[in-house]
Amino acid sequence: MRGLSLSEAQRLLEAGAARATEIGQPMNIAVVDAGAHLLAFVRMDGAILASIDISVGKAVTAVLMNMPTDELYDLAQPGAPLYGIETTNGNLVVFGGGIPLVVDDEVVGAVGVSGGSVEQDVDVASAARDALAGTARP
Amino acid sequence: MRGLSLSEAQRLLEAGAARATEIGQPMNIAVVDAGAHLLAFVRMDGAILASIDISVGKAVTAVLMNMPTDELYDLAQPGAPLYGIETTNGNLVVFGGGIPLVVDDEVVGAVGVSGGSVEQDVDVASAARDALAGTARP
Amino acid sequence: MRGLSLSEAQRLLEAGAARATEIGQPMNIAVVDAGAHLLAFVRMDGAILASIDISVGKAVTAVLMNMPTDELYDLAQPGAPLYGIETTNGNLVVFGGGIPLVVDDEVVGAVGVSGGSVEQDVDVASAARDALAGTARP
Amino acid sequence: MRGLSLSEAQRLLEAGAARATEIGQPMNIAVVDAGAHLLAFVRMDGAILASIDISVGKAVTAVLMNMPTDELYDLAQPGAPLYGIETTNGNLVVFGGGIPLVVDDEVVGAVGVSGGSVEQDVDVASAARDALAGTARP
Repeated sequence: MRGLSLSEAQRLLEAGAARATEIGQPMNIAVVDAGAHLLAFVRMDGAILASIDISVGKAVTAVLMNMPTDELYDLAQPGAPLYGIETTNGNLVVFGGGIPLVVDDEVVGAVGVSGGSVEQDVDVASAARDALAGTARP
Repeated sequence: MRGLSLSEAQRLLEAGAARATEIGQPMNIAVVDAGAHLLAFVRMDGAILASIDISVGKAVTAVLMNMPTDELYDLAQPGAPLYGIETTNGNLVVFGGGIPLVVDDEVVGAVGVSGGSVEQDVDVASAARDALAGTARP
Repeated sequence: MRGLSLSEAQRLLEAGAARATEIGQPMNIAVVDAGAHLLAFVRMDGAILASIDISVGKAVTAVLMNMPTDELYDLAQPGAPLYGIETTNGNLVVFGGGIPLVVDDEVVGAVGVSGGSVEQDVDVASAARDALAGTARP
Repeated sequence: MRGLSLSEAQRLLEAGAARATEIGQPMNIAVVDAGAHLLAFVRMDGAILASIDISVGKAVTAVLMNMPTDELYDLAQPGAPLYGIETTNGNLVVFGGGIPLVVDDEVVGAVGVSGGSVEQDVDVASAARDALAGTARP
C-alpha cells in the first residue's frame, strides 16, 4: 500500500483552501490516510465549528466506504438500501464533500471538506484531490 | 440455552466466505452468540472497512431484535412504528444482512454480513446460516 | 506498506489457538491490520466475554502505540510518564497480550490475546506472532 | 476574546515541526482555539497513530483546565486532589505536552504535542508556543 506523506496532504489542504478563498467560503479541510487516520487539518478563519467533525467524518467515510460521500447520499435516504447507515460506524457522513484519493487503483486516503453548501464542499474537495499527482478522476 | 461452539461459528464463516467468493464479492462476516457477543469474524481481502462494524452490528441486531435485519428495515422507515430505532442501542443496523440462528425454536446466535449490495449481503448471510445443522429456514 | 492477508491472519489465529489449547486456557484472539482495523477474530469455547473487547483493544493498542502492550504497562503506572493513557484513545489496553507484527521494519498489523493470566496472554500472542513468516522477534 | 487565526496556528505548527525535526522525533501537533475547538493539525511522517488523539486531547485539556497538562500530572495521581480527572471530560490528558496560549493574560487557545517522550513533547510544544507573538512564558 502506498503511503500518503504529510507534504502531500498539506499540498491538498493548500489547494483546497485556495479554491475556498476563490469562491469566498471559509472551509474546514481534513486529509486522512488509507487507514482513515487524520494526517492534516485546517479550519479557515470564519469557518463554522460543526464542520470540524463533519470534514473529518467525510474523509473517514470516503475511506471506510471506498466511495465519494455524495454517492452515499442517495443510498442512505428513507426507502433506499442503506437507510440508517449514518449511525453504524460512529462518524459516517452521508452527504457530499468526502472524496477518496485513488492512485494506481488503490485508495491511499481521502479528503473531507465542510463549511459551505454541499456543492461548494464537493467543489473544494475536488480541487484538493486534483492536487495529488496521479489521482484518478472518475 | 444451547451454546454455539467456535467450530460451528467457523463453519458458518467458511460457508459464507465460499458463497462470497462464488459471487465475486469480498465480505466481512461476523457470528455472535445468543448474548450478542462476538464469537468469530473474518474480513475477506478487499472488503471495505466500514463493513467491519456493520457486519458485527447486523449480527448483534438480529439477536437483540430476534429478527432478520431486513425485516427491521420497513419498521424503521419514516412513519413506520420503529422509526429512529437505529440510534437506540449503539450499533443497530436496519438493513438486510443480519440473520438469527434458530435451532429448535431457540435463538442460539446470529450471522451478520456486509461488503456488497444488501441483496448480496443477505445471500451470503443465508449461505452461512444454512451451514448450521438444524437451523430453521423461515 | 505491506498488507496483511486474511489467510495470514487466520494462520496466526490457528497458531495462537493451538498454543492456548496446549496450556489449557481458552482465549480470545484478534488480528488487526496496519490501520488498526479488525481482520480476524476467534473466541475459543469457554473464554470469558470481557476478553472480546480486551483482545481487540490490545491489538489496536499495539498498532497505535507501535509497541507491545506489556511495555506500555510500566509507562502507564501512577507516577510513570504516561499515567492516564488508557483513557486517551477509546480502547487502549495497558497490560500485556498485544504484540505488533513487524516485517522488514514495518508494522503490518498486530495480534491481541486475552482470556488467561497476562503471562498466558503474552505467551499465546507470541505463538501467534511467530506464525507470520519474516516477523521480527525483538 | 482575541481570536487565534489559522495563519498563527500554522506558524505554531511549523515551529513545532521544525523543533521536532531538530531533535529527530516525528510528532503529532494540534492547535485549538479558546473554545477548545481544533484549528490546525499535522501528523509528521512516521509519528505513531495513538498520538493523533493524544495531541488533540492535550491541547483541549490545556484550554479546558487553563493550565499546562504537565501541571495536571501531579494533581491526577492516586491520593492527589484531582485523582480520576482523566475520565471526566471525554478526552483529558494528564501528562505533559499541552500548553495554553496566553496573550495579555487571556487564553487564546492551546497547542498539544504527542509522539515522543513526555519531555520531547513538552519541548516541541514550547517551541510551538514561542512562535506566537506576545505569548506569555510563565
